[in-house]
Amino acid sequence: MYSVNVRDHFMIAHSFRGEAFGPAQRMHGATYVVDLEFRREALDADGMVVDIARATEVLHTVLAELNLRNLDEDPAFAGQNTTTEFLAKVIFDRIATRAAVGELGPHAQGLRSMRVRLNESHVAWAAYEGKL
Amino acid sequence: MYSVNVRDHFMIAHSFRGEAFGPAQRMHGATYVVDLEFRREALDADGMVVDIARATEVLHTVLAELNLRNLDEDPAFAGQNTTTEFLAKVIFDRIATRAAVGELGPHAQGLRSMRVRLNESHVAWAAYEGKL
Amino acid sequence: MYSVNVRDHFMIAHSFRGEAFGPAQRMHGATYVVDLEFRREALDADGMVVDIARATEVLHTVLAELNLRNLDEDPAFAGQNTTTEFLAKVIFDRIATRAAVGELGPHAQGLRSMRVRLNESHVAWAAYEGKL
Amino acid sequence: MYSVNVRDHFMIAHSFRGEAFGPAQRMHGATYVVDLEFRREALDADGMVVDIARATEVLHTVLAELNLRNLDEDPAFAGQNTTTEFLAKVIFDRIATRAAVGELGPHAQGLRSMRVRLNESHVAWAAYEGKL
Amino acid sequence: MYSVNVRDHFMIAHSFRGEAFGPAQRMHGATYVVDLEFRREALDADGMVVDIARATEVLHTVLAELNLRNLDEDPAFAGQNTTTEFLAKVIFDRIATRAAVGELGPHAQGLRSMRVRLNESHVAWAAYEGKL
Amino acid sequence: MYSVNVRDHFMIAHSFRGEAFGPAQRMHGATYVVDLEFRREALDADGMVVDIARATEVLHTVLAELNLRNLDEDPAFAGQNTTTEFLAKVIFDRIATRAAVGELGPHAQGLRSMRVRLNESHVAWAAYEGKL
Repeated sequence: MYSVNVRDHFMIAHSFRGEAFGPAQRMHGATYVVDLEFRREALDADGMVVDIARATEVLHTVLAELNLRNLDEDPAFAGQNTTTEFLAKVIFDRIATRAAVGELGPHAQGLRSMRVRLNESHVAWAAYEGKL
Repeated sequence: MYSVNVRDHFMIAHSFRGEAFGPAQRMHGATYVVDLEFRREALDADGMVVDIARATEVLHTVLAELNLRNLDEDPAFAGQNTTTEFLAKVIFDRIATRAAVGELGPHAQGLRSMRVRLNESHVAWAAYEGKL
Repeated sequence: MYSVNVRDHFMIAHSFRGEAFGPAQRMHGATYVVDLEFRREALDADGMVVDIARATEVLHTVLAELNLRNLDEDPAFAGQNTTTEFLAKVIFDRIATRAAVGELGPHAQGLRSMRVRLNESHVAWAAYEGKL
Repeated sequence: MYSVNVRDHFMIAHSFRGEAFGPAQRMHGATYVVDLEFRREALDADGMVVDIARATEVLHTVLAELNLRNLDEDPAFAGQNTTTEFLAKVIFDRIATRAAVGELGPHAQGLRSMRVRLNESHVAWAAYEGKL
Repeated sequence: MYSVNVRDHFMIAHSFRGEAFGPAQRMHGATYVVDLEFRREALDADGMVVDIARATEVLHTVLAELNLRNLDEDPAFAGQNTTTEFLAKVIFDRIATRAAVGELGPHAQGLRSMRVRLNESHVAWAAYEGKL
Repeated sequence: MYSVNVRDHFMIAHSFRGEAFGPAQRMHGATYVVDLEFRREALDADGMVVDIARATEVLHTVLAELNLRNLDEDPAFAGQNTTTEFLAKVIFDRIATRAAVGELGPHAQGLRSMRVRLNESHVAWAAYEGKL
């Protein structure tokens, strides 16, 4: 199995609801350094897992929808705690949708699975992985 | 599959027995930066893989049993080479035991698997992963 | 010249005023991984630059005043853009004040200078350094 | 499942053919920081996944065949784009061959799988993993 | 003294002349992850050391002149060994020139000094720093 | 001012004396990832700060004197707490001595200063710097 990973980041504000979150119920924020990993069984005709330039661009586009915003005001997340693991899945789904309509290029249909990891500090990260 | 990782560290002295270990048969030591990763299929009621505050606390408690000690004098490791990979399993088992008795909170029964990785330098690490 | 560094982090929300900040004028947030470095010419009676346990505790206390908050609502920063470099100076001053009243222990009067560095992503950081 | 990882690096020149590579069709180069990970179900008689000293030596030997060279002039890669993912597989195969003839020591037959990851910058890496 | 750092990277091929370089006399290459640090005594009117967006853009522009090329063919380096430390100075000078003509914005005249660090692997880096 | 840095590591056991050290008075250990930085005003005849191959070799030789040992049994440290900052100075002095007798090569007399940094975990490091 081959894999390729590209990295970018975004910075947001949000707050959580529920006693389990303690002081994180207050409005606060985070920098998320995002690792986007694609996996496939065999390389494409160009000897690549994915066109890295396109993957980098799609990742940047998806993160731009979230970057420098207050997620509490985003209707897409109404009634949701935007935990790191939840956001990993949101980004996974949005990239999967763009992959499905061809934004990663013609060879990307060979991709098997994908992993999105959000590094939120030097001591914590969360991820979501699934099939494509 | 979702995952969440928390990080902490511990510092110990030990020595190894067996020619395969060369100069590491002498009393020496290591800093282990520990990555503890939990995985589950679906998020819990709070939108989390695991209560990070509790996970951090349980990891710290388990590492405190080893931290700033000479492992050669710990009866738990009598007759054992406390290699990095062996210690990864020790920490895995101790955290699994605490998870089983509820120390990670009520939602933690949804956890599927766990991985413990010990980073021992900028060029070497070892890990153990298994089901919960 | 000797130096010692300890690391911790905090997560906040804020927004900036001024065209120069572009989309960062919106409410957003950041994780700041903080490096606190102390410098002195000669080691103290215990062979240390500073008591690391106390330094770690003082850093944690100072960051706790900011952690998990919306800095736009903190009266201490009224009318200020809480840029990364500005926050580095704020943390510098607060630690210097605590050092001056003895919170770093009796030997800490030998400290010459200090540096506070805030890492805000994998591609950007800011710092402030000065005499003590 | 246990795993152990060792790290080394190599620096090469190469160029790519095909429009998908854009300006990377020009002669350029890369530093690849290589992570070599071995996995097995149970530890060997010495409590190890693999003899780390031997693993480090085999990795260094394999990388030395590529290090400080222009890959475009290496007959082994004639007609191939030496992408990062392609090189990960090349290194995987060369280490697997050496493992098969005993260069990793007598206990290495217990190894189940292996992963070779090439970190090419702070924002990109590729890997190949497979059974042994 | 305040400082701000931004990071980018470039990938090149080159070779060295002189016995001191051993096998690095062959055509090879490198990824250089570049840290560009600006320093000044007081913050500007916006509470910044430098406009980070402009600094990032200027760094990218300067690195693009070198990126994905064979430095042995660049007339600017004729007769020169393009060692990491030499390249750090080249990038320093090119950014200083752009700063002098206002590309970093109107407040940038308050900048005191600058440092350019090229990280070439996980075990080596070189830098050049000087006044502006 | 130019600088060049090389990295290596060593792993030791030791214990401290004095109440200030708390549980670190017990026998324990550490991995120290060492950054050795050389600085000079102008490059040498080969366009280098220092011959990196020689610098790497001298660093390795000096660390080998300490590596995989119990520092409490080393006569050189009798009556001394081998704190991280103290060890940084020990390594500085030993490398300076080797530089003075020519082990870094003929051009190394142009070196101005040196810095030795010992990274002991993901949250702490200490350093010593001085003239050559």
